[in-house]
Amino acid sequence: MAFASSAVANGIFFSAKNNKPFVSYAIANDHNAKRTTAKQLPVQHVNKKAMSSSILKLPSSISNLLHLHLSAHQEVVYPPRTTNSCFPIQNEIPSCSPKDDISSLQPALHGRNDWSPVLEPLHPYVRRELIKYGELAQATYDAFDNNPLSKYQGSCLYCRNRLLPALGLSHHGYFVTKYIYATTHAHLLHWLVRPFFPSRWSDDSNWMGFIAVSGDEESRRIGCRDIAVAWRGTVSPAEWIEDLQGKLEHLPQAPDDVRVEHGFLSMYTSRSPTSRFTRSSASEQVMPELLRLVELYKKRGEEVSVTITGHSLGGALALLNAAEAGSLLPKDVAVKAISFGAPRVGNEEFGDMLRRDGVKVLRVVTKQDVVPKVPGLFFNEGLNRTGWEWIYEHVGEELELDARASPYLKNGVVDIAGFHGLETYLHLVDGYDRAEGGFRAGARRDVALVNKASGFLREELSIPANWYQPENKGMVRNKFGRWVLSGRDPEDIPSPCTANAYDVSSSVM
Amino acid sequence: MAFASSAVANGIFFSAKNNKPFVSYAIANDHNAKRTTAKQLPVQHVNKKAMSSSILKLPSSISNLLHLHLSAHQEVVYPPRTTNSCFPIQNEIPSCSPKDDISSLQPALHGRNDWSPVLEPLHPYVRRELIKYGELAQATYDAFDNNPLSKYQGSCLYCRNRLLPALGLSHHGYFVTKYIYATTHAHLLHWLVRPFFPSRWSDDSNWMGFIAVSGDEESRRIGCRDIAVAWRGTVSPAEWIEDLQGKLEHLPQAPDDVRVEHGFLSMYTSRSPTSRFTRSSASEQVMPELLRLVELYKKRGEEVSVTITGHSLGGALALLNAAEAGSLLPKDVAVKAISFGAPRVGNEEFGDMLRRDGVKVLRVVTKQDVVPKVPGLFFNEGLNRTGWEWIYEHVGEELELDARASPYLKNGVVDIAGFHGLETYLHLVDGYDRAEGGFRAGARRDVALVNKASGFLREELSIPANWYQPENKGMVRNKFGRWVLSGRDPEDIPSPCTANAYDVSSSVM
Repeated sequence: MAFASSAVANGIFFSAKNNKPFVSYAIANDHNAKRTTAKQLPVQHVNKKAMSSSILKLPSSISNLLHLHLSAHQEVVYPPRTTNSCFPIQNEIPSCSPKDDISSLQPALHGRNDWSPVLEPLHPYVRRELIKYGELAQATYDAFDNNPLSKYQGSCLYCRNRLLPALGLSHHGYFVTKYIYATTHAHLLHWLVRPFFPSRWSDDSNWMGFIAVSGDEESRRIGCRDIAVAWRGTVSPAEWIEDLQGKLEHLPQAPDDVRVEHGFLSMYTSRSPTSRFTRSSASEQVMPELLRLVELYKKRGEEVSVTITGHSLGGALALLNAAEAGSLLPKDVAVKAISFGAPRVGNEEFGDMLRRDGVKVLRVVTKQDVVPKVPGLFFNEGLNRTGWEWIYEHVGEELELDARASPYLKNGVVDIAGFHGLETYLHLVDGYDRAEGGFRAGARRDVALVNKASGFLREELSIPANWYQPENKGMVRNKFGRWVLSGRDPEDIPSPCTANAYDVSSSVM
Repeated sequence: MAFASSAVANGIFFSAKNNKPFVSYAIANDHNAKRTTAKQLPVQHVNKKAMSSSILKLPSSISNLLHLHLSAHQEVVYPPRTTNSCFPIQNEIPSCSPKDDISSLQPALHGRNDWSPVLEPLHPYVRRELIKYGELAQATYDAFDNNPLSKYQGSCLYCRNRLLPALGLSHHGYFVTKYIYATTHAHLLHWLVRPFFPSRWSDDSNWMGFIAVSGDEESRRIGCRDIAVAWRGTVSPAEWIEDLQGKLEHLPQAPDDVRVEHGFLSMYTSRSPTSRFTRSSASEQVMPELLRLVELYKKRGEEVSVTITGHSLGGALALLNAAEAGSLLPKDVAVKAISFGAPRVGNEEFGDMLRRDGVKVLRVVTKQDVVPKVPGLFFNEGLNRTGWEWIYEHVGEELELDARASPYLKNGVVDIAGFHGLETYLHLVDGYDRAEGGFRAGARRDVALVNKASGFLREELSIPANWYQPENKGMVRNKFGRWVLSGRDPEDIPSPCTANAYDVSSSVM
């Protein structure tokens, strides 16, 4: 179905890009330059051009990058904050947006025309969809058992059927069909959370996300059966960012010159023959399920889309997954990746491959977040640099957010975790209308969520920092009056059997 | 009623003191010396003697004291830990001890004969009573609103009627008749928790404890109507220990030479004319209520006892309160103070006054806890030292615990908060049988409680450190789906009216 041109003509989506001068910001410049020139020049041409000039300006190590970012911060001049800030939070207005039928927008929502008709200004329906996928990605954090004293640390707190209801996300209308577990090369095992507990559920696997399918009602609303894959990132990028020294590696089953970051690829493709959960790799878990679901719904004559999402490291995995889905799934299935605060993943040829396969990528990036700036445009000295294929490149369209636009966030502080947090991203998406457009007055998403795992909200709002915590760290009083760590309900205990997909054809949604 | 001599004769309580050599421990020596010599010499005589020799050995500032304590720690030789440690915690045994009728022991329980018949070895019934009072003192911590974003920070989370049930302490059979609030001199206001919230409940008052009365059933069991006063300490001694520079001050309405620590006295006697909660001082709140209750129950022909308890700073306030009760209450009312980890409060003449008034004091002290070692035996240079009245003295009998005796606690670490925590004290009381006697095999109190506000339990026990925390820091979802700080139930909002005693004569217990 083609994009509804009448809607375009009457100006609902289109608006001239607000070309105010960009802030003088060493790193941000790089992003902005790429993004604006992309409007005027063919994509392939631009990227090399933008890069070659960037190479001269950019530092050669991550720590330099971080350092530059912090020191450059002082020079930035932001527009003065409006005096009538949005305080206080309006706690008596429902935080859910209305769920309109958006089936007619379906092609635009899948990134046809590289999302350009719906990003600037950001179409309200697209904003809502971005937040939906972002909340599915956030679910992978909220449901992750990171209790060092739990024998299930590193797994999901809930079984597949209870995941979205337990997190209050049933209203999105998806049901989870499969969990994804991952392991990695031995030398990167510190990327995983490994339980301290002696009789742990798994030595070398972590729950890394899930596959979910839109129910009938949601499918009607969005105009297709949407298969969503949500990839978990890590709680803190500190766990993996140090390892990103530019070890680009050939992507299996891709053209010779396609290279991706070694660590991300390891996470996506490693198996552990003795493990109950990662005998097959994350890739080998997710792809058969995608093929099965696509075949199932296509047989029913439905239009099928695949949307792969993730934040941070999860965004990188989402891109690898999207690349594989783009090459293996039938060409009439729209495959898109929506990442939040994701690092670069591969070289330019990796990007070309995604474009050739018609995979649409939308990268949501906060200007002040350092993670999307890694791995930087620097060379791995240990490798033979014979050409451009050793340079990382971001893929797809960028929606650039500005943490300074929100009147709710602390101003003038450098809060690396605050800038990077997915809840901060979702808050800023909710407030985004257009570049340099300030914070949207009609934003209704619950502001307090920003502080779930950060202290980035302004003090005046009186929202506790890092408030997302279980009562008594999971200690409960047993029938003998003694405090013990609460066990899992039997159905929530991770099991390789229940990790397999159930037969969605028999499910009633 | 006289002490039941038959019980003494048949050896239930009495046992020769186990006079193993004391550990060579600079500070502990001081305690131990005083304690053993007190058995052989008349009290007044001993104290001066023990002191004068101690003066030469003891350091002249708190920081020296702390330093010496830590470095001296290396020299201590403890008995080897028994190999059959009590691991794991037996979680399937009820943690409550049976409630036997102990009315015949009543005089011994009130410290007649300075508790000597029941302390060594510790009589099981006395142990149980000590834990009861300790748990009442612990309630002042557990119910204290210390949420910096609460407009009620510094007050009690619950109204008087709900306090003990909310904390699972109904089984002690007491009901609370009055809350106590305190303020202090302006220059010591940092001893109080002061809410950040602009429209706070009180600017300069803190909830400091409560008065509770034993119900009919508990009164029958213990052989008298017991009026308990529990005083809150502070979360961390760091708040006040620095101020204890030995500013001894005359205790009002006491003989001229009776002097007590300036800061404790200020907390006990300060008023704030403009405050809703401390228009009258803590002393002026607690004493009329004690007089009223004593009169009420004595009129009914009941035997009445007053037990004043507290931990840390709360133990100091308990002693001041006991001194006042000892001088103002009828002489046939047994007044006792049971303190846990309390600092020294006054000079020798203060101790004499308590002894003259028949106030029985039991100080429960952990050998490794630094707080009972302050204020030290040093002089305040700013004052004219004309005699012994400027020297602090501990009052009463000491039950000395040893944190090294418990196989559940971390060994070989210096955990100042762990040693000092009231839950650690209660754990050690539960495990105490006699000095150097190791940890009692039959101890049944829930070990996990130690880690409520510390990380002092051994890692192998897999109990989270500092686990006592509210779900989501008090954030709850309102009916609009938004996360907000939960308010107080109207009945739990502090009010000077509900702080007044209700008429217990009409209560049914």
